[in-house]
Amino acid sequence: MTERVEVRQNVLKENDRIAMELRGELSRRRILCLNLISSPGAGKTSILEDTLKAMGARGRSVAVLTGDIQTERDAERLRRYGFPALQITTGGTCHLDASMVRRALTEVPLDGLEVLFIENVGNLVCPASYDLGEDTKVVVLSVAEGDDKPLKYPGIFRRARLMLLHKIDLLPHTRFDREAAKADARRVNPDIEVLETSCFGEPGLQQWLDWIDERVREKKNGKEGVRSRQQAAGS
Amino acid sequence: MTERVEVRQNVLKENDRIAMELRGELSRRRILCLNLISSPGAGKTSILEDTLKAMGARGRSVAVLTGDIQTERDAERLRRYGFPALQITTGGTCHLDASMVRRALTEVPLDGLEVLFIENVGNLVCPASYDLGEDTKVVVLSVAEGDDKPLKYPGIFRRARLMLLHKIDLLPHTRFDREAAKADARRVNPDIEVLETSCFGEPGLQQWLDWIDERVREKKNGKEGVRSRQQAAGS
Repeated sequence: MTERVEVRQNVLKENDRIAMELRGELSRRRILCLNLISSPGAGKTSILEDTLKAMGARGRSVAVLTGDIQTERDAERLRRYGFPALQITTGGTCHLDASMVRRALTEVPLDGLEVLFIENVGNLVCPASYDLGEDTKVVVLSVAEGDDKPLKYPGIFRRARLMLLHKIDLLPHTRFDREAAKADARRVNPDIEVLETSCFGEPGLQQWLDWIDERVREKKNGKEGVRSRQQAAGS
Repeated sequence: MTERVEVRQNVLKENDRIAMELRGELSRRRILCLNLISSPGAGKTSILEDTLKAMGARGRSVAVLTGDIQTERDAERLRRYGFPALQITTGGTCHLDASMVRRALTEVPLDGLEVLFIENVGNLVCPASYDLGEDTKVVVLSVAEGDDKPLKYPGIFRRARLMLLHKIDLLPHTRFDREAAKADARRVNPDIEVLETSCFGEPGLQQWLDWIDERVREKKNGKEGVRSRQQAAGS
């Protein structure tokens, strides 16, 4: 098992090196990069569909890299909104890594780009360990999954700056205790921000869209870069 | 990366060796072993709570091993039903492996045991690759997760004998297409059995409980062992 641990450490070290290069490149270009992580089926792709639609209306320039084990389905769903959407098919691997992102980015026009969304493979465990050069990880927790997830999967809640409490429209049909979920997320990460979201009816995605706009503005002013470097150093 | 692939293959080979020993031991004792796999929050622990309650009423002798990355919560929930329930805390690892199960089984009284449930770590990817010596893997798919999961995570749907289409009570509140999900599951695994289940109201867990009873009977007659060995050889 020691051999295995060593190989894993070397893999992570090499990943961090590539991620640091990516972060530098994206930062120089003032491109905000958000890495969305959740369980399978928490709603990442639906959130991104509605987000791309809104970004178009707001005149933003965005692109998406979407990770999946086997299919091209998500990129097909996301391409309809007129922005570049590239599928990264991992062929069995349970997370994206920085080298996959670097390879995919050679096919994305970066000039003038404002936001790069990365939709990770649906998995609440392994993607948390892989830095992709993002400004921040965003964890999406669907209320259909149960409120015990922040303590059961603390790694991703500790590393994310923002939690989207999603499918909030399903709340009346579940036993999900939203205050308990938020309190537990803050136990593992006192700084985590929380927004309640839904792709059906109220409250919708308005707060999430405003949050992105605010981050884009910070990025252009050079503030975000400072914070993300501090986070990277401390993770 | 070749070094990494080699280490992974060695780990899986060693895992398969231990799993084969476990399968032999459980088979000699005519203990049915079911390995439940799903995304985080699909409902495995709730299903097991209701299952243990029913097994008690039916006079069955059962035990549970429940895997989690950090907390002891699931075992605490499951211990209330009067059967042995052991937590396996993986400390960051995203799946159970056969050696963890072997270690945990030293603390479970096996004499007279009829069913051993293993609740895997919530993850639709990695647990599929690890044989735990079970008779069969059972994949739980919540309708809140979306009907595209069988094609997006084919590994587990290919290896499971049974799919529980769970939280079926939420169906009216989702865009989940149950016929599409079943058809896709059968595309990756023509032999997969499907049951619709819910822990709230109709249809409940009756069919699942009957399915277990049928497997216990087969196991006692020695049929199940033959099938599971064939499956293991072909996987």
